[in-house]
Amino acid sequence: MLSFECDYLAGAHPKVLARLAETNFEPLPGYGADKYCESAKEKIKKACACPQADVHFLVGGTQTNSIIIASLLHDCEGVLSAETGHIGVHEAGAVEYTGHKVLTLPAHAGKIEANELHSYLARFYADESNSHMVQPGMVYISHPTEYGTLYTKAELEGIYKICREYSLPLFIDGARLGYGIASRETDVTLPDIARLCDVFYIGGTKVGALCGEAVVFTKSNTPKYFTTLVKQHGALLAKGRLLGVQFDTLFTDGLYFEISRHAIDMAEKLKALLREKGCRFHLESPTNQQFIVLENSRMAELDKKVRFCFWEAVDEHHTAVRFATSWSTTEEDLEELAKIL
Amino acid sequence: MLSFECDYLAGAHPKVLARLAETNFEPLPGYGADKYCESAKEKIKKACACPQADVHFLVGGTQTNSIIIASLLHDCEGVLSAETGHIGVHEAGAVEYTGHKVLTLPAHAGKIEANELHSYLARFYADESNSHMVQPGMVYISHPTEYGTLYTKAELEGIYKICREYSLPLFIDGARLGYGIASRETDVTLPDIARLCDVFYIGGTKVGALCGEAVVFTKSNTPKYFTTLVKQHGALLAKGRLLGVQFDTLFTDGLYFEISRHAIDMAEKLKALLREKGCRFHLESPTNQQFIVLENSRMAELDKKVRFCFWEAVDEHHTAVRFATSWSTTEEDLEELAKIL
Amino acid sequence: MLSFECDYLAGAHPKVLARLAETNFEPLPGYGADKYCESAKEKIKKACACPQADVHFLVGGTQTNSIIIASLLHDCEGVLSAETGHIGVHEAGAVEYTGHKVLTLPAHAGKIEANELHSYLARFYADESNSHMVQPGMVYISHPTEYGTLYTKAELEGIYKICREYSLPLFIDGARLGYGIASRETDVTLPDIARLCDVFYIGGTKVGALCGEAVVFTKSNTPKYFTTLVKQHGALLAKGRLLGVQFDTLFTDGLYFEISRHAIDMAEKLKALLREKGCRFHLESPTNQQFIVLENSRMAELDKKVRFCFWEAVDEHHTAVRFATSWSTTEEDLEELAKIL
Amino acid sequence: MLSFECDYLAGAHPKVLARLAETNFEPLPGYGADKYCESAKEKIKKACACPQADVHFLVGGTQTNSIIIASLLHDCEGVLSAETGHIGVHEAGAVEYTGHKVLTLPAHAGKIEANELHSYLARFYADESNSHMVQPGMVYISHPTEYGTLYTKAELEGIYKICREYSLPLFIDGARLGYGIASRETDVTLPDIARLCDVFYIGGTKVGALCGEAVVFTKSNTPKYFTTLVKQHGALLAKGRLLGVQFDTLFTDGLYFEISRHAIDMAEKLKALLREKGCRFHLESPTNQQFIVLENSRMAELDKKVRFCFWEAVDEHHTAVRFATSWSTTEEDLEELAKIL
Repeated sequence: MLSFECDYLAGAHPKVLARLAETNFEPLPGYGADKYCESAKEKIKKACACPQADVHFLVGGTQTNSIIIASLLHDCEGVLSAETGHIGVHEAGAVEYTGHKVLTLPAHAGKIEANELHSYLARFYADESNSHMVQPGMVYISHPTEYGTLYTKAELEGIYKICREYSLPLFIDGARLGYGIASRETDVTLPDIARLCDVFYIGGTKVGALCGEAVVFTKSNTPKYFTTLVKQHGALLAKGRLLGVQFDTLFTDGLYFEISRHAIDMAEKLKALLREKGCRFHLESPTNQQFIVLENSRMAELDKKVRFCFWEAVDEHHTAVRFATSWSTTEEDLEELAKIL
Repeated sequence: MLSFECDYLAGAHPKVLARLAETNFEPLPGYGADKYCESAKEKIKKACACPQADVHFLVGGTQTNSIIIASLLHDCEGVLSAETGHIGVHEAGAVEYTGHKVLTLPAHAGKIEANELHSYLARFYADESNSHMVQPGMVYISHPTEYGTLYTKAELEGIYKICREYSLPLFIDGARLGYGIASRETDVTLPDIARLCDVFYIGGTKVGALCGEAVVFTKSNTPKYFTTLVKQHGALLAKGRLLGVQFDTLFTDGLYFEISRHAIDMAEKLKALLREKGCRFHLESPTNQQFIVLENSRMAELDKKVRFCFWEAVDEHHTAVRFATSWSTTEEDLEELAKIL
Repeated sequence: MLSFECDYLAGAHPKVLARLAETNFEPLPGYGADKYCESAKEKIKKACACPQADVHFLVGGTQTNSIIIASLLHDCEGVLSAETGHIGVHEAGAVEYTGHKVLTLPAHAGKIEANELHSYLARFYADESNSHMVQPGMVYISHPTEYGTLYTKAELEGIYKICREYSLPLFIDGARLGYGIASRETDVTLPDIARLCDVFYIGGTKVGALCGEAVVFTKSNTPKYFTTLVKQHGALLAKGRLLGVQFDTLFTDGLYFEISRHAIDMAEKLKALLREKGCRFHLESPTNQQFIVLENSRMAELDKKVRFCFWEAVDEHHTAVRFATSWSTTEEDLEELAKIL
Repeated sequence: MLSFECDYLAGAHPKVLARLAETNFEPLPGYGADKYCESAKEKIKKACACPQADVHFLVGGTQTNSIIIASLLHDCEGVLSAETGHIGVHEAGAVEYTGHKVLTLPAHAGKIEANELHSYLARFYADESNSHMVQPGMVYISHPTEYGTLYTKAELEGIYKICREYSLPLFIDGARLGYGIASRETDVTLPDIARLCDVFYIGGTKVGALCGEAVVFTKSNTPKYFTTLVKQHGALLAKGRLLGVQFDTLFTDGLYFEISRHAIDMAEKLKALLREKGCRFHLESPTNQQFIVLENSRMAELDKKVRFCFWEAVDEHHTAVRFATSWSTTEEDLEELAKIL
């Protein structure tokens, strides 16, 4: 059935699969010590304009979030996040499992605001009883957010300024980073991301890979024993080549960006189509996830013809749903959708 | 360079890769809810002659060990293991990270003995101060072991009998299970494994897959919230199809067993070759890992021509090293090795 | 200096100290196996009219909360609490340290409401993606709450009904339970508490003891290995007699209730005094903690003459502060305060 | 019944109890911010001849061990300990509960040897696969050990030299430190202890207090957020005065040392008595714990007349048992024992 359910519907971009096949019989050392990992790291550092970066490959998003957070926090520190942040809602308590609390800030269409971050910290340090409280230890944001929204460069600068003032590392969850960079409405580039945080990751799973996330520590700040930590979390692939070959391909000849632009082109067409069909938008998203509000009866009817994602109840009679595009979305998919709507 | 370093040198068996390519563009639901996972589970249950089994797919071995162990233990229980068990030595404390102690039993070429297990438990329950001690909560064995050795069916029966007597689940780490089943010197079949433990896994990473381990709970005993636990450990792949398609292929037309038999054939030839060349064996292994003892000067010389794995110092002048075969080892590899030795 | 800062200002009730001195030289077995622990447990079961109860003694409140919660939850379950609950705010992430998330419900002067609990649970189980979320595993309430407020019997019945409907254990934090039971405005007795939850504790530290909390599992539901868990958390006192003797004394001839009534008498006089002096109350509290709102300049002035507790900023110019009475508050203290106000 | 079962049989030294009574009504700030804690800290620093020390008070031994260890270790580090160390055997997995492995060294009557520590570390860092292993993060020893034995000054110097060479903090568990310092066969003083490790604790529970251990970080090396960590572990007493007053008394006019010498005097008499009665010693202990080997029939008979502690089976017919003295042991106790033996 036609599906706009999510951005991990299909396998990998054909070039990625082809490269896996080509390199398949080469005997390579395990655990990420192979030449493809090496080459992919160099290409990523270059794409980030960040020669001092350390790049590590992990398998999936929740895993990446919990390992980075656990590796940066002291025992009684927590991570500050928008109350809608993925780490606090849909990761089954993975952060708490590592012993840390997710401290919440108000969310504005998925984003936090620098001034609210500042107020939180100022209030915390003014509170005499704060030694009985979870210490703020880092800040987590997602870009694009869970709602498809993006920070402007000025917003990122504002947040990072507060973080540095309070010596808190800033971590950007880039599970869908490609779609953020490729948006038509952003002034934020990959080098900006690298410059404006302490660690981020470049999502592969949702942007053309079978699996894989590329973690970038941007300030020569890889935590002590990071590889051992990754092993301890059960996240060190024996065949690290699976990640190296994929990211090496994605960062050859700009494939990662090309894939992302395609998804954005499809998303813009989708948006136009939805608007044309009179759909009401739940919020304005400049990336590959589009949220509309449907009457429940209409939703039930549509559900028989196309797959989309239930998001949240809006009121008794209306529901917000998500349509997502990805590298694998085609013009034909949109045409078919046009007929259905 | 010619390499016998390990059994995860190459990518995936060509049929596995081909199937990933064939199914690549099908839009499929995420997180393991796809039809390939479903089909693979059915085939595995059949191969295990265990219709009541629950099958789950995970990505790697350390991850699988720590999730299964954490899911079966109460807070102050530990897992009993041979002192050479992988979980206690080479997994960076992944079990302890989940809050549990690895309780050790003597190892005999990597194996535990039923009578020593029994003594441990009898002594523990006789000790008046045992409420101040870590409670035995389950038993872990690997088959083949880290030393390539195998339990006989009678040995497994003896161990499982003790486990049931003390109500301790028995978990078999089958990272290299295929090579155990295919050994010429075993009387243990896959249905025997399923019958003689509470949970085990069928290793994919080392037996023809890019990654992936198939966990089998054999007594309708999947722990509560298992999928949520997997998510919490960062081990739930968004594109679960990656695991489903691979295992579906491995369990179609007996590919998993065919691959394994090939590795054993190569191992037997390797063993004959090493014997012929006068090598001293570190221990007798009936599976794909062969351990020999080299003089250090000879080791340094060989090291320039072929990759193998440093295992452990034997004395000041001798070292035990490992040569491993796998599905990807060829007759040509052995011929080349013959020239070098 | 005169102090109304908290309810743990002084040492122990003189009868408690005297009893410690009387029994000091008796050689007694360690770890809570002594006759005073035994006797105290029997008296507590009687006071609770709950013969099937299991009683355990622990040292302090945060310790008790985290041990009870950890002992009742499965790995990916969290504990539901008012957003102002002590466990989520002033315990330094002790719950998260055990791997569990505190899931928050709206707070109404420190209390949760049965209907909001019900909505949370109904919404959770209706959400298709809930296997990616922390599972609700128990409900935590404090009585009195952190704001001195109390649940009515009907409210407790309402909450417990929902808990049973969803098979969630209800845990009542009774760090100040005595002051709740002794309030002039409550219809809740100690047997009601025992009847209307699965586990609660009777606070000693704040009600006449040097330290100590008596945990009561009310439904013969002590978790497996509870003593070992307590040991594992570093909470098993070698000289368990310290807790046994204290609780045995507190539950002899109704001392615990007498102490509590005294604190309430003092609180009522305090309340009358504050009202008389024209103080504005931050909220209505029927127990030993009274909250008033002071102009900041007035607060600074008072701060030189009497100790009280900063609570929270109300606006730029006003602050809520807490005055607490306890078993050790005297008429003279109140008279002195009257002169100061 | 006459009891030599352990060194925590009785309550507190009478001077300690008296001081608690004297100070009982003084209103004091909570959580260790009171003047008695302050004064006790100063006295301890003086007794240790270590002005730069940081002193913290905790409640019990297992708690102290697990908090110190967790506060000093990185996520994938473990603590090196004799295989008989308390932390690895009788603390119910408290260290593992904080996520860390206890790495074991051979034990020689409870002690580790500098050269074996050195070999362990040399081997570890020579192993190519050590990034897959738990990293050595600190060294734990107990003094006196669990077997009553003591390190000589030269032995401590040897161990500490290796620790500094490998940048591993050395932690000395001094649950029975007083009895070590007061031994007639030691050349180790309290200032030596402070000089020859990074952190240690002065046991109170077993040396005259109701409860309490004084942690001393000797190199101005208190871990970040230590008070918050203590709170997070549920170990921060609201009435911190309970610990402050006790340690202030124990370190006034040398009471701690006087108590300890008394126990040693009693132990020497006990030793002479046991020898005189022809008992076979399990090992030579210069402190307050004495271990003898009894025929099982003799043990059963004695058990009816005096309490002692079962230690370990020696062979089928013999058992090692422990007799302990303490501050509360009297000449009369020994006379009564003489009649029984």
